[in-house]
Amino acid sequence: MANTITEYDTIAAISTPVGEGAISIVRLSGEDSVAIANRVFRGKDLNEVPSHTINYGHIVDPETDEVIDEVMVSVMRAPKTFTREDVIEINCHGGLLATNHILQLLLAHGARAAEPGEYTKRAFLNGRIDLTQAESVMDLIRAKTDRAMQVAVNQLDGNLAHLIQNLRQEILQVLAQVEVNIDYPEYDEDELTTKMLLEKADLVGQQIDTLLKTARQGKVLREGLATAIIGRPNVGKSSLLNYLLHEDKAIVTDVAGTTRDVIEEYVNVNGVPLKLVDTAGIHKTEDKVEKIGVDRSRQALAQAELVLLVLNQSEPITDEDRELLKATQAKKRIILLNKTDLPARLKAAELASYLAPDERPINISILKQSGTDTLETKISELFFGGIETNQATVLVTNARQISLLQQAKQSLEDVKSGIAAGMPIDLVQIDMTNCWDKLGEITGESAPDELITQLFSQFCLGK
Amino acid sequence: MANTITEYDTIAAISTPVGEGAISIVRLSGEDSVAIANRVFRGKDLNEVPSHTINYGHIVDPETDEVIDEVMVSVMRAPKTFTREDVIEINCHGGLLATNHILQLLLAHGARAAEPGEYTKRAFLNGRIDLTQAESVMDLIRAKTDRAMQVAVNQLDGNLAHLIQNLRQEILQVLAQVEVNIDYPEYDEDELTTKMLLEKADLVGQQIDTLLKTARQGKVLREGLATAIIGRPNVGKSSLLNYLLHEDKAIVTDVAGTTRDVIEEYVNVNGVPLKLVDTAGIHKTEDKVEKIGVDRSRQALAQAELVLLVLNQSEPITDEDRELLKATQAKKRIILLNKTDLPARLKAAELASYLAPDERPINISILKQSGTDTLETKISELFFGGIETNQATVLVTNARQISLLQQAKQSLEDVKSGIAAGMPIDLVQIDMTNCWDKLGEITGESAPDELITQLFSQFCLGK
Repeated sequence: MANTITEYDTIAAISTPVGEGAISIVRLSGEDSVAIANRVFRGKDLNEVPSHTINYGHIVDPETDEVIDEVMVSVMRAPKTFTREDVIEINCHGGLLATNHILQLLLAHGARAAEPGEYTKRAFLNGRIDLTQAESVMDLIRAKTDRAMQVAVNQLDGNLAHLIQNLRQEILQVLAQVEVNIDYPEYDEDELTTKMLLEKADLVGQQIDTLLKTARQGKVLREGLATAIIGRPNVGKSSLLNYLLHEDKAIVTDVAGTTRDVIEEYVNVNGVPLKLVDTAGIHKTEDKVEKIGVDRSRQALAQAELVLLVLNQSEPITDEDRELLKATQAKKRIILLNKTDLPARLKAAELASYLAPDERPINISILKQSGTDTLETKISELFFGGIETNQATVLVTNARQISLLQQAKQSLEDVKSGIAAGMPIDLVQIDMTNCWDKLGEITGESAPDELITQLFSQFCLGK
Repeated sequence: MANTITEYDTIAAISTPVGEGAISIVRLSGEDSVAIANRVFRGKDLNEVPSHTINYGHIVDPETDEVIDEVMVSVMRAPKTFTREDVIEINCHGGLLATNHILQLLLAHGARAAEPGEYTKRAFLNGRIDLTQAESVMDLIRAKTDRAMQVAVNQLDGNLAHLIQNLRQEILQVLAQVEVNIDYPEYDEDELTTKMLLEKADLVGQQIDTLLKTARQGKVLREGLATAIIGRPNVGKSSLLNYLLHEDKAIVTDVAGTTRDVIEEYVNVNGVPLKLVDTAGIHKTEDKVEKIGVDRSRQALAQAELVLLVLNQSEPITDEDRELLKATQAKKRIILLNKTDLPARLKAAELASYLAPDERPINISILKQSGTDTLETKISELFFGGIETNQATVLVTNARQISLLQQAKQSLEDVKSGIAAGMPIDLVQIDMTNCWDKLGEITGESAPDELITQLFSQFCLGK
């Protein structure tokens, strides 16, 4: 990881969301930021103003003398900036046209259009943040619940990075010991070194396990839990959907880049972000009679990580119900016995035959909103139960981190089995080094360039 | 107009467009801005930092100690701020949730949620800008062409305001003279005063006329010119629409507040923003055969300020063509004789009988893109021809300003006819004062409160 500040070329981008807003920001970063801004700014000489000051003036096209906008220019000189480079933020009146015009002017006067995530990439390349912190920047922007936000803020503060760095430090100690052992075989400390290797493999392995236990939760918090509401027609799927979508639970998110067609529907149930699957299908049938049958349910099922299976307890189990009960047996599911406001006619004994021994269906009347609390508690228990988390808990949240942790863990297993098989210590050392590398990839200390490029390309423009 | 700074309560709002962006800004304005921000900010003591500085730190919920986001806080103390009050801008990582969370925290610690346009309203109430400048702020945000942006920037610089203020000054002089005349009738300067009144009425009247001449152009620049493409089926309406929508002319604008259904289509033709009417109707028929006939065209006609009537010059005039030619006679229209790539079979003599004496249809082949330049020149001539404009030209751009100018002009006419009819000078004075008031309403110097409230309510939130 670069810990010195490298000067790259100067980049520019619009850093506020696109749209008609009160304020837009055009941001510059790089060695020539101040000089370039100065060329198009009419006000104080930006070369002369102190760092971290806000300066009133106008953006003017120096060729035509045309005034583009009235602005406030923030001058932030390296190294105490987001990128550790000189940063200029031009705070303008907003509006697509003026904002774009300012950007074009900066590009015409020496800046290059920034790539998505390029500011954060520089913060990483210049050693201000590690990869987990960089990733948390985007997680923070995309967070769907307070808890997800909290995890991201935590990670942004470097908590995961420190934990990983500590593990690497532990490994480094034993690797140094192994080196001594290899360089001075006459001391014959093989046994001691082997013991130390095993101890460290255990110690580090346990900590990785603890982290991995949080992985599923972290991933759900970050991406939402794909949830399907299924059931035969007329059991109350629409009502359940509407119940979830109301009561301040809905987090409707436009998918970036598309404003018209793809709307993902998220709801926040006791801090668990559910990403609802195939709600369009359910919405379509809202008028009176639900037409969605087993076929459509099966499609939704395929994508779901959690299934809410709705049965009508005021009617006997039908063949369709049976099919759905069977189809969802391998899934994480919650069975809802709806319409408890009506007399029970569903045979508990028959239902039981489709359930796992510890599976408890929930009696519910979505219409009367009775039992809905139980459902919500159940959902959060399923995902937070068993893992103690509080604000300070470090969670791993994304697939990249999880996969690298698993690989690091595997290397430790290899260390142990290698030692058990009596392999020479310099071969065992390779596995231990591999673990060290994999952990380093998480923080970016040993990440290959392509990974870095690929990772930041998923960021939004201007970040 | 208040020229002293009144301290209102402290308001807060998100000032960047809603969405996932790299940076969001939460803005405070009012006496307690610094104190409120300080309650939720962990970093330097904001009470101690110099004005117009940028300060790194975290937003923390003081009750729970929960870190919400890593932020840069801009401290700008009165009076050199947008509102002339103390202003704080919290520059955070973006994302709906964190940004909202920060806003909620500020509201919980003493700020009130700002109404739409309330920051600009305060800038007005505190005398930093006049009403025309306030209006130009929104015009700038919503500008659809460079020229429209330029007009808005001009107005923001106070050019229209200065012009109006000068006119009021002229009127004030003559009103003072009239006062002298009424207070000291013994001087018997009636004749002199009458002469002065007539002179001023002419002088001010001429300047108002000059301004009103720019009104239509200003309004078109600001709002776009509602333009209908009409014609019987198969004459080339879709091709014309596509031609206009391509070639970097399209300015597709989401209407504020709706992201899904209402998309207005604007095109920029030589600086004239055309707002295309009923493009959905035309789009629908793009597949092979155009089905839109005279009926649909009539509907589009009703809303249009400019009509592009397409005829097929490779076929004789049909009854449908005749109907459309008649229906558009009272409209500002451009007749396009399309398909010049095919042999001419339309009888010029018959067509001429439907045209105004100076009306010149344009021969065009949209397919071959011949004659399209002529069309574009024609459109800009229609709207910029005859009026000299350059960057510095002051244009009146909105209906409110235009209506008040017309009323002011009418008062001047009343002055003149009153004098001609030998009315007593203190009655003539009333009309002259009325003119002075109407001009004052334009800049807000004599605007009633309801007007101010109504005007700013059309602004976007956070501005």
